[in-house]
Amino acid sequence: MKKKQKKIYCDVAASSPILPEAAKAMLTVMKEAWVNPGSIYDLGVQSKNILEQSRLDIANFLGAHAREIIFTSGGTESNNLAILGVYNYFIKAGCKSDDLHFITTNIEHSSILAVYEELKSRGCDISILPVEKDGRLNPKILRAEIKPNTVLISIAHANSEIGVIQNVEELAKEIRHARKTSFWRESEDMFGAPYFHLDASQSVNYLPLDTKSLGVDLITIDGQKVGASRGVGALYIKNGTPIKPIMFGGRQEMALRPGTENVLFAVGLAHALMQVKKIQNKEVKKLSVVRDYFIKKIQKVLSQAIINGSQEYRLPNNVNFSLPSTDAEFILLQLAEKGIYCSAKSACLPSEAGSYVIEAVSDNKATAKSSLRFTFDSSLSKKEVDYIVKVLKEEIIK
Amino acid sequence: MKKKQKKIYCDVAASSPILPEAAKAMLTVMKEAWVNPGSIYDLGVQSKNILEQSRLDIANFLGAHAREIIFTSGGTESNNLAILGVYNYFIKAGCKSDDLHFITTNIEHSSILAVYEELKSRGCDISILPVEKDGRLNPKILRAEIKPNTVLISIAHANSEIGVIQNVEELAKEIRHARKTSFWRESEDMFGAPYFHLDASQSVNYLPLDTKSLGVDLITIDGQKVGASRGVGALYIKNGTPIKPIMFGGRQEMALRPGTENVLFAVGLAHALMQVKKIQNKEVKKLSVVRDYFIKKIQKVLSQAIINGSQEYRLPNNVNFSLPSTDAEFILLQLAEKGIYCSAKSACLPSEAGSYVIEAVSDNKATAKSSLRFTFDSSLSKKEVDYIVKVLKEEIIK
Repeated sequence: MKKKQKKIYCDVAASSPILPEAAKAMLTVMKEAWVNPGSIYDLGVQSKNILEQSRLDIANFLGAHAREIIFTSGGTESNNLAILGVYNYFIKAGCKSDDLHFITTNIEHSSILAVYEELKSRGCDISILPVEKDGRLNPKILRAEIKPNTVLISIAHANSEIGVIQNVEELAKEIRHARKTSFWRESEDMFGAPYFHLDASQSVNYLPLDTKSLGVDLITIDGQKVGASRGVGALYIKNGTPIKPIMFGGRQEMALRPGTENVLFAVGLAHALMQVKKIQNKEVKKLSVVRDYFIKKIQKVLSQAIINGSQEYRLPNNVNFSLPSTDAEFILLQLAEKGIYCSAKSACLPSEAGSYVIEAVSDNKATAKSSLRFTFDSSLSKKEVDYIVKVLKEEIIK
Repeated sequence: MKKKQKKIYCDVAASSPILPEAAKAMLTVMKEAWVNPGSIYDLGVQSKNILEQSRLDIANFLGAHAREIIFTSGGTESNNLAILGVYNYFIKAGCKSDDLHFITTNIEHSSILAVYEELKSRGCDISILPVEKDGRLNPKILRAEIKPNTVLISIAHANSEIGVIQNVEELAKEIRHARKTSFWRESEDMFGAPYFHLDASQSVNYLPLDTKSLGVDLITIDGQKVGASRGVGALYIKNGTPIKPIMFGGRQEMALRPGTENVLFAVGLAHALMQVKKIQNKEVKKLSVVRDYFIKKIQKVLSQAIINGSQEYRLPNNVNFSLPSTDAEFILLQLAEKGIYCSAKSACLPSEAGSYVIEAVSDNKATAKSSLRFTFDSSLSKKEVDYIVKVLKEEIIK
């Protein structure tokens, strides 16, 4: 009989299981939280109170006010609401699509890029800025691209594939500066344009997210990436940011997101974030050591490997490298047979395409089809890293 | 010490707890289903297989093909996707908003009416048909309203407040007939206009939903109303129905609904529906007896009561009546104090408004502010009904 293989799961950026702390909190309120919080009797009020406590917990996590937090069905919906919601506001204020300019980068997640593609098809002017070879957006490049009619700028805090962290404070400074010459600077409700939308789906666990020091207007949070349930997300909307709903119905979530509030999952998200805050410092230290060890080991054992993206400004649990003239998908399937799980690119992309993120930070297209991403939690040991690299070297690449 | 009061919950149309059968199925796959089904390794494939089995189970429930089922975050999103999705298709095909005509009724849920309000604000021609005094839409009224440029007709299978069941087959017949003179009848992809969208959120548990005999093109299903988790829904889209996404991102769900698939909840929805199918006949018989008893009792004891909506074409678990010159919200709060939970109108409406549904089926506005809705499961006994009516008569109305 075959010995049962230990699984080494290094794909937490694709999805991660629910944290025990979040599950426990959900079980505690399960009996109350299923009641419709829109019902006016005591059980409904109880359910509503649980929802509002979760909203407050998440606001506290972000250094925000409770009324600035909207619950959604996940990161994709949060990104859609941020971009299409601000667009809808400007359109309803009488602007035409071709009056409006938006900026993003060429390494964003598909739930950002596809929304901007849609806006382009409606006639908007969309700038997709190239990042530097280390995966970071140069603030000067951003400054040069902002126009008087720039409405919104969407940038991921940390990239989902290469884990590169953007210089959010510097980018925010450029955006604030540009407001002085904005077309809408004297408008009563849109004077804050250009607005800054930060996709924090991948960074929440590892980077401090304080709205006051970041200087952003919208923040996307994805439940499944922080140890809450799939099917829940949040959008931070800074007080005063002009935004309209993208779905229509009941007046829930300050009339920005219709549908019965998912109280139970809101509780899960709040408790996952509170747990994240509690352990973040320690986790980041621990993970960084393993990440650096992993990268050094790769460089030593697999001399042909190219590490993708900045090593300095990088999530503590992300290792991404290309093995030129190999087929990443073939390698990852072989690794999976050995119980090692990683990914070749975002799980949201069709399988025939290479990674546009790797293409953006490397000089040749071949690298984009030979990249492997390892994203791990703090259970990954140096011994397991040794094993991963050994398997790669001795059994797969040869 | 106060004796602990038994709770009599008669508000299942607002929300209901997860069915044990659905919860059990979810627990069984919990270990596999959290993996991203977009991941190409074995664990991802396993997760994908679970998702596809659930899709097939739901398709079987509806007499449909698996590829005709799209998972969403709930009934509100399904309604939005059905209406805005078909609208988006016509717009992308080159139509202008003011080329397009849509029809609905004056008793639809806010997640239908608010979407059509939005389309009206974009320039579409929207007809909101009045229902008869029994709450049903007269097929002749529908026939007279259909125009050559009618794109879509949205009607709830059963109304959420008064439980009145529409004559879907007859309405479908009128719609099919109108296709012969449709503006798009010779188009390659839009020849099926006008399309028929059925909101089955409230009816799934109680009425057979066979796509072949119903003759509809789109069906909304809401997880929280059928004993699955909140945060999951489905949209049946008949093969060939022209529809485009309303959110943008990854290519999940046949490129119609982006975002990592919520495998666990899909399993819950599938198992809830399978359980519904198993017990439906028996449940409906049991519920109908209690409903009829409840209505008779009301008519006997509270002579001033007006039963709202048809008694013949009515969900088996819905009793809705007005007590003229009373304030429904005040009464329902008093009932809640006695452990009896019902509602005054949809939980999705702001508290100051009366019920537009009751207004549509009654002759005076006062009735709309004095209506009470009791929606129950089969645990409600005749003895409890006696108790409810007694409390109403002796302690509240007096």
